[in-house]
Amino acid sequence: MLYKRNPQLNKNGELIHLLSTEGLSRDILTQILDTAANFVSVNDREVKKVPLLRGKSVFNLFFENSTRTRTTFEIAAKRLSADVFNLDIARSSASKGESLLDTIANLSAMAADIFVVRHSESGAPYLIAQHVAPHVHVVNAGDGRHAHPTQGLLDMYTIRHYKKDFANLRVAVVGDVLHSRVARSDIHALTTLGAAEVRVVGPRTLVPTDLAQMGVRVFHKLEEGIKDCDVIIMLRLQNERMSGALLPSSQEYFKSFGLTQEKLQLAQPDAIVMHPGPINRGVEIDSEVVDGPQAVILSQVSFGIAVRMAVMSIVAGNEA
Amino acid sequence: MLYKRNPQLNKNGELIHLLSTEGLSRDILTQILDTAANFVSVNDREVKKVPLLRGKSVFNLFFENSTRTRTTFEIAAKRLSADVFNLDIARSSASKGESLLDTIANLSAMAADIFVVRHSESGAPYLIAQHVAPHVHVVNAGDGRHAHPTQGLLDMYTIRHYKKDFANLRVAVVGDVLHSRVARSDIHALTTLGAAEVRVVGPRTLVPTDLAQMGVRVFHKLEEGIKDCDVIIMLRLQNERMSGALLPSSQEYFKSFGLTQEKLQLAQPDAIVMHPGPINRGVEIDSEVVDGPQAVILSQVSFGIAVRMAVMSIVAGNEA
Amino acid sequence: MLYKRNPQLNKNGELIHLLSTEGLSRDILTQILDTAANFVSVNDREVKKVPLLRGKSVFNLFFENSTRTRTTFEIAAKRLSADVFNLDIARSSASKGESLLDTIANLSAMAADIFVVRHSESGAPYLIAQHVAPHVHVVNAGDGRHAHPTQGLLDMYTIRHYKKDFANLRVAVVGDVLHSRVARSDIHALTTLGAAEVRVVGPRTLVPTDLAQMGVRVFHKLEEGIKDCDVIIMLRLQNERMSGALLPSSQEYFKSFGLTQEKLQLAQPDAIVMHPGPINRGVEIDSEVVDGPQAVILSQVSFGIAVRMAVMSIVAGNEA
Repeated sequence: MLYKRNPQLNKNGELIHLLSTEGLSRDILTQILDTAANFVSVNDREVKKVPLLRGKSVFNLFFENSTRTRTTFEIAAKRLSADVFNLDIARSSASKGESLLDTIANLSAMAADIFVVRHSESGAPYLIAQHVAPHVHVVNAGDGRHAHPTQGLLDMYTIRHYKKDFANLRVAVVGDVLHSRVARSDIHALTTLGAAEVRVVGPRTLVPTDLAQMGVRVFHKLEEGIKDCDVIIMLRLQNERMSGALLPSSQEYFKSFGLTQEKLQLAQPDAIVMHPGPINRGVEIDSEVVDGPQAVILSQVSFGIAVRMAVMSIVAGNEA
Repeated sequence: MLYKRNPQLNKNGELIHLLSTEGLSRDILTQILDTAANFVSVNDREVKKVPLLRGKSVFNLFFENSTRTRTTFEIAAKRLSADVFNLDIARSSASKGESLLDTIANLSAMAADIFVVRHSESGAPYLIAQHVAPHVHVVNAGDGRHAHPTQGLLDMYTIRHYKKDFANLRVAVVGDVLHSRVARSDIHALTTLGAAEVRVVGPRTLVPTDLAQMGVRVFHKLEEGIKDCDVIIMLRLQNERMSGALLPSSQEYFKSFGLTQEKLQLAQPDAIVMHPGPINRGVEIDSEVVDGPQAVILSQVSFGIAVRMAVMSIVAGNEA
Repeated sequence: MLYKRNPQLNKNGELIHLLSTEGLSRDILTQILDTAANFVSVNDREVKKVPLLRGKSVFNLFFENSTRTRTTFEIAAKRLSADVFNLDIARSSASKGESLLDTIANLSAMAADIFVVRHSESGAPYLIAQHVAPHVHVVNAGDGRHAHPTQGLLDMYTIRHYKKDFANLRVAVVGDVLHSRVARSDIHALTTLGAAEVRVVGPRTLVPTDLAQMGVRVFHKLEEGIKDCDVIIMLRLQNERMSGALLPSSQEYFKSFGLTQEKLQLAQPDAIVMHPGPINRGVEIDSEVVDGPQAVILSQVSFGIAVRMAVMSIVAGNEA
């Protein structure tokens, strides 16, 4: 998809939609992370609420089901004091033959402020952002294989929290990179934030061939790929790949690409291990690693609420 | 159904339930529209909330699924600061063999204030209204083929907004009038509010024969029916009718009763085109009309929130 | 299940989780009932809200579907001003192969305050309570055949409301005691609160044999079991038992164990009749009794909201 102007920004270069980490400047990424830092403390308070979006209406439009991601956005929105509406889109007008854009136009007319969109088709949130009324902001909660920018941003927040600076970091993204919108969002953000080296590690069938152009080093052996890394981002292996044409079996996969405590020794001694969840213990990652001291997976979840609060409060504050 | 006293009104003639536009006086209809006018501005504010129903409990009881209508009521209730409870009635006690009235009695005992009821059986909201505790108000969100009074009222609001006065208006309701609760609610309201002429237009199989008694003119040709009209209300053609016993096919239907820009020329030059949604583009209405300057379909959606806020705040303010 | 320390209490003996009425002292049960008494009046107010849990996050984790129970907790939490998140657990990560404890750890990391847990397996809420972060409180909303403590407590509240004192009461629990978590929770609470006599009444196939050890008298004839009782708690007969191996038919059951107005004469003249709902009219109880002056079934529902408000506000106020 090509656009003349970045559809995520208004004329002043301010963020009005969050569709992808691709094309966002280091300044904007940093603004989001800095804003999230303020919200992390809100989530530790007795009263976990700030009135920033009071009286605003946030619509969760999940064309593809994801209870967990939907819940994180619902929590983030309610802690900003917004009213949240969860639309069971699968059972609604969409199934009565109404077009996506008619559904969106209808919901816009109800005076929506933010649409949080999850869709199985890459690009759907872009299409929506191009057609919404000026008062509506779109946040991509995952579209096809394309992007999952809030996951990418919470990964960046987590890395910055533990490693302070991106400049000298060696980061490995491990697993089914081909089908992963998380991997794409991470790679774009890491590159923009100036990570020293970004690697992807996975079997040949699950790593896209065009990654070298993105300035990424490709590895097909886990041991080589994570060697000396400071950050290891493990990707979830989708159930449907586990014994399909692309992989022999989940046991075979674990043998070659599952992260064990032993293999983890190859990385830096203070390396952190991340995972977007939900975890397949014993498939892409060993339980010992998940429950070990280097895993920061639950911190990712906590920071994820703050990052989504940051994104929603920033876009809602900028005019189209 | 015959009642001695109108079950929608208390002894002082004030609205305590909204069950149908039938039997409501012009004064009451006008009170609802005037109240809605105040709420239209609330929906344009930064903080889209008023505290009128703070601490009240609104229960959405959708025995028949309708995500869109349920959402409009949820938005309206939350903008009045009520707490909203969406009951997935299809999956709940109703399916455990509990009777409708036992379910209602139970929910009443939880200190409900408003029940918003959608039911596939005509009359269900009446039955509920007759049995609820005095502190509970019932709003009909569509019952069988009988009534959909908030849709009727938002249609009236839209007409008044664009045409100011009902006195000289010629209004056509077009399509599957036989199965439409919207048509019934519109016709009753239009008659009470003094529209000069109300027409229904549709194939013989989809227009009930007793309409003439309601003071309505019946047409079986679209061209004749919409001639010189000021307002055209297109009805949705239900999927299940499209190629059933009552209609040859959706293509045939469009040829005879689909509203095109060309046919629209037969109406008044400043005629408005309405539709309750969701739209079947190319079945009952051509895309060019939907997206054209005479369509006010999205305004209906916006006004619908305000009208539902008006209805809920009025009934909650009156004692049984 | 054996525990060294009661997992429901902190070191000071204060309630931090509600998992069962078993093992709770008379003082703690009385504290809950006294606190609930204050909330009963809140539910009668114009503004049915108190700010006790403002900014707290309550998660409804219903691994087993129960719209009614979930709704009562949602109402209770919102009337305490908490934010409530309903997780459609059946459709979420649990179904992606994630373990219960990983799901719980994830939700804890989102800064949850209270988990309300319904699960088909006995003991699941205990497992969860043992693994949650110290800031999280667990309330059991029914686990397998084991316990349904808030139902037990609302039954105690109802009895105390109508009978003032437990000391001289003869209470009969009638029906499918074997499969009833309600019966277990009632029996433990009644014993602790000092009821003079607790009886269970049911067919031999539906009464567990170990009840005598709990200090309970067992009857297999309804007429004998309810004779001279002050309180009769009728249990719901689950549909799946009605014509299974354990019972001949629902008609036969009604003949032997269905409570009719005539049989009710055998109890004290001022006996009250209770039922946890939903009712099977004509199976375990006759309509005449349900709608008669001795039934207090709808009061149970009303008090249930207040009791759940009490439980949530108490546990949230105590530190692990």
